[in-house]
Amino acid sequence: MPDVWIAGAGMTRFGKRQESLPDLMAEAARTALSAAQLEAPDALVVAAMNPEEFVGEGNFASQIATYMGFSRVPALRVETATSSGAAAVYAGFAAVAGGFCRSVLVVGGEKMTHLPTPRVSELIGRSIDPVERSYGATMPALAGLVTRALMAKSGVTLKEISQVSVKNHAHGALNPYAHFQEPVTLDAVMESRIVADPLRLYHCCPISDGAAALVLSAEPAPIRIAGIGQGMDTLAVRYRDSLTSFRATQDAARAAYRMAGFGPERVDVAEVHDAFAPFELIALEDLGLVPPGKAGRATLNGETALEGRLPINPSGGLKARGHPLAATGIAQIVELVWQLLGRAHGRQVSARVGLAHSIGGLATNNWVTLLERVA
Amino acid sequence: MPDVWIAGAGMTRFGKRQESLPDLMAEAARTALSAAQLEAPDALVVAAMNPEEFVGEGNFASQIATYMGFSRVPALRVETATSSGAAAVYAGFAAVAGGFCRSVLVVGGEKMTHLPTPRVSELIGRSIDPVERSYGATMPALAGLVTRALMAKSGVTLKEISQVSVKNHAHGALNPYAHFQEPVTLDAVMESRIVADPLRLYHCCPISDGAAALVLSAEPAPIRIAGIGQGMDTLAVRYRDSLTSFRATQDAARAAYRMAGFGPERVDVAEVHDAFAPFELIALEDLGLVPPGKAGRATLNGETALEGRLPINPSGGLKARGHPLAATGIAQIVELVWQLLGRAHGRQVSARVGLAHSIGGLATNNWVTLLERVA
Repeated sequence: MPDVWIAGAGMTRFGKRQESLPDLMAEAARTALSAAQLEAPDALVVAAMNPEEFVGEGNFASQIATYMGFSRVPALRVETATSSGAAAVYAGFAAVAGGFCRSVLVVGGEKMTHLPTPRVSELIGRSIDPVERSYGATMPALAGLVTRALMAKSGVTLKEISQVSVKNHAHGALNPYAHFQEPVTLDAVMESRIVADPLRLYHCCPISDGAAALVLSAEPAPIRIAGIGQGMDTLAVRYRDSLTSFRATQDAARAAYRMAGFGPERVDVAEVHDAFAPFELIALEDLGLVPPGKAGRATLNGETALEGRLPINPSGGLKARGHPLAATGIAQIVELVWQLLGRAHGRQVSARVGLAHSIGGLATNNWVTLLERVA
Repeated sequence: MPDVWIAGAGMTRFGKRQESLPDLMAEAARTALSAAQLEAPDALVVAAMNPEEFVGEGNFASQIATYMGFSRVPALRVETATSSGAAAVYAGFAAVAGGFCRSVLVVGGEKMTHLPTPRVSELIGRSIDPVERSYGATMPALAGLVTRALMAKSGVTLKEISQVSVKNHAHGALNPYAHFQEPVTLDAVMESRIVADPLRLYHCCPISDGAAALVLSAEPAPIRIAGIGQGMDTLAVRYRDSLTSFRATQDAARAAYRMAGFGPERVDVAEVHDAFAPFELIALEDLGLVPPGKAGRATLNGETALEGRLPINPSGGLKARGHPLAATGIAQIVELVWQLLGRAHGRQVSARVGLAHSIGGLATNNWVTLLERVA
């Protein structure tokens, strides 16, 4: 299988944006194409979780192709709920690795801040098992359940969980693309209002607009996609073997490491899916980056901070950079590309191998992507 | 690139169905898996145009995976409006041809008949360019415009257009999976009520429920996918070079023939996207199956009937088999598989090479797939 390289990366600032979703996606895509010095790709993969209901538009791959002046470039849309961006990267990867295309533009985005929060919650809540939803489960409610189980089973403390938010806000404060660019204190996190016990406001990612894009290419470039893996779990949380680890992450990581031919010991930096702060702790252990039961302590010790031994979410993560759903899985990789190329001004870490981890739904459709700087 | 084979095919009866969309998709998928003698595929590709608004469900790939008992099988959803089924076949093909999987289950479906017709029209209308939509354009309105242009430019008559419906209803009457299993007369078609001048009710496909599925495999089987091509056009109809031929079909056909290494002269049977009867005539010429300007006459002469030299839509097509959106592109291929295997009881044609043609939106995202019986 031929190697797949990242020829260009781009993203918009995340946050409350006035531009239309096609505008945001075009902005990110043009940055990526320009970085790749490519006028037009062989194909286009578009990620959007629910453009029909968030912005009232369908046939969205064709719409973005036309909007960008690529009305003759083959385009399709890929969707796996909140991990749609990562799934689109896989689709682009498969098109290049399979020999179908020399270059693929992958672009994902979402626009949500114009809708009332209860409506956004309702739309995101459609990712939950219908029976659990019928009992009133929401995404934060299920995350609260997972958090309580995590605290009971592995002794993780609220202080450790809150430190994830403090760290990621500190990182976001250094990232001009982040939704939130203000640090927060541990007290502020622990005293913010309750969303779903024990989760408080500052344990949860915001509702954001934004887009991110990558150009994948068969032409060698400094960074290659070393591995991609997908993992799944039952839609229904009640059927799972464990609430305190995510099989979908474990399976995705195993597949990605197998493709890459190396394991977690070579990962220098990671962007992980901290839609809820405790999910970062679960991810660190599921990905094999931290020994079982040690993630809370490692976070409190600063091991996962920008200057620590294993920087996690240097971008600010979903917590501070923001989470425009289908943009997120791509934006994580954009951040890693910039980190590996030494272009993450103001928040640069020293890294040769990066890992991106994206969660779809309540960990039903997860992805792990490994990048390696070769040149 | 390794060959990709069709190991199994299945579909539900199309029409007004009481079952849920997951039920319908599972029924089609189980038939395909059983035909392939496969317990579980390596991956699952799900096609649904808009499950969020048609049935109120999201994270749909995960939902179908869990529902079928494949909660550990990697699954993603692909969408290109009304051609989503064909796009999903491509995604499955790429996964096998690229060496990522040995077997992929591709399943697509839609459930629409429970909604009021104006709501269905509104949801399908989201595939139209937003500016044209803002002037009140609907899918039938644009199709009416295309039909008027076709009649003016190439002299196609309403009688020729109506004969497409008569032929496809005659075929559907022989297909136990078809939504409509009653023949219609030319007079009945030409006297049915006006939908969008000059298109009448019997020139338009119905609103249907249903699902279809394929198992694609790296293991040799009697039928292989010889070629797949995608073609695109501007979302806005007003920007097109021609209203009376579809560039998206022409480009898709060119790409598919190139991959297959043969041209239209080897095609023995085709399933084409007759959402509106005149589209079948346009498709025949765009696909190179009939010389320019001859499709109307060929249809009236019976050349495209079941017993003609080139049977078109032996299933009944979208017109009579029905058009549950994302099911359609897959159902076309299911029909061709049955035809090539000699299992299309009651409507069997003699064929070794089959062509499937699917339109996304108003011909913005089209696909052509070529099947060849090898063994």
